[in-house]
Amino acid sequence: MRVIGFDPGTAATGYGIVLFDSGRLCLEGFGVWRPPASLSLSERLEFLLTRAHELIAQRCPAAVSIETVFAGRNAASAIKLSHARGVLLAAAGQCRVPVFEYEPRLVKKALVGYGNAEKNQVRSMVLSLLSRQRARVPLDAADALALAVCHVHACPTGTR
Amino acid sequence: MRVIGFDPGTAATGYGIVLFDSGRLCLEGFGVWRPPASLSLSERLEFLLTRAHELIAQRCPAAVSIETVFAGRNAASAIKLSHARGVLLAAAGQCRVPVFEYEPRLVKKALVGYGNAEKNQVRSMVLSLLSRQRARVPLDAADALALAVCHVHACPTGTR
Repeated sequence: MRVIGFDPGTAATGYGIVLFDSGRLCLEGFGVWRPPASLSLSERLEFLLTRAHELIAQRCPAAVSIETVFAGRNAASAIKLSHARGVLLAAAGQCRVPVFEYEPRLVKKALVGYGNAEKNQVRSMVLSLLSRQRARVPLDAADALALAVCHVHACPTGTR
Repeated sequence: MRVIGFDPGTAATGYGIVLFDSGRLCLEGFGVWRPPASLSLSERLEFLLTRAHELIAQRCPAAVSIETVFAGRNAASAIKLSHARGVLLAAAGQCRVPVFEYEPRLVKKALVGYGNAEKNQVRSMVLSLLSRQRARVPLDAADALALAVCHVHACPTGTR
């Protein structure tokens, strides 16, 4: 099964593509989309929508994996993030790919062992699980890969 | 000038189309999109995206007018609303139509005279301004029409 993970943001959205095949996890691709800062919010969201739609349509994943969002300490940034998240969900909907949501704290706990792990600890662990310890992966893309790996782990063995 | 107003929501999104021509405001259309409750969030957002894109592409408005969003008393519903809002902004971006944002309180103040006006007071006033007092307009669509009218009023006379 192929899974695309997304770490949404209007300034930077990370994505990571993971393939689970014959009991092995492989890194198939990753990246970060950064809409030019000169664009308006609607133009930035259109930029993300176009790229997310293209990526999902090309790679035909079995699932999209994305962080849940909650107000927490910073409601204003949760609201901003939800605009990008809405667009990524709509892109998955356009491609008829089911979306699975995971709490950031649980993703960290599942991969690193505790919910308050730092971003670079998550990156080290996810690259180790993908046997790509030396890959140079930006933090936003590593978070997206972590979400994709987390979904593979969450799937019952028979459905992977 | 033609303006489309949107009142975003994942359960119901209202839209209203207003034409300002030769010093007169005309109601050109309105409606409420209600994605079936059986759909997942990503499917509902795709439903809204498709309809908003179609409407904007068909009507070629000079502007899209939409409410600002802020956490306020209910951060969870602001987050939910921001998903739909993101999708509507992206649809405007796809059609290269500029988006203008207005605070709900200021829209009410501009139309009814005070920021805490009830939704049905806003509806009465907006229908009166559009000389359509007898039209049966759902509240969500009336809010969208109010946003469109508010944008016409906010434009300098020469640019309308």
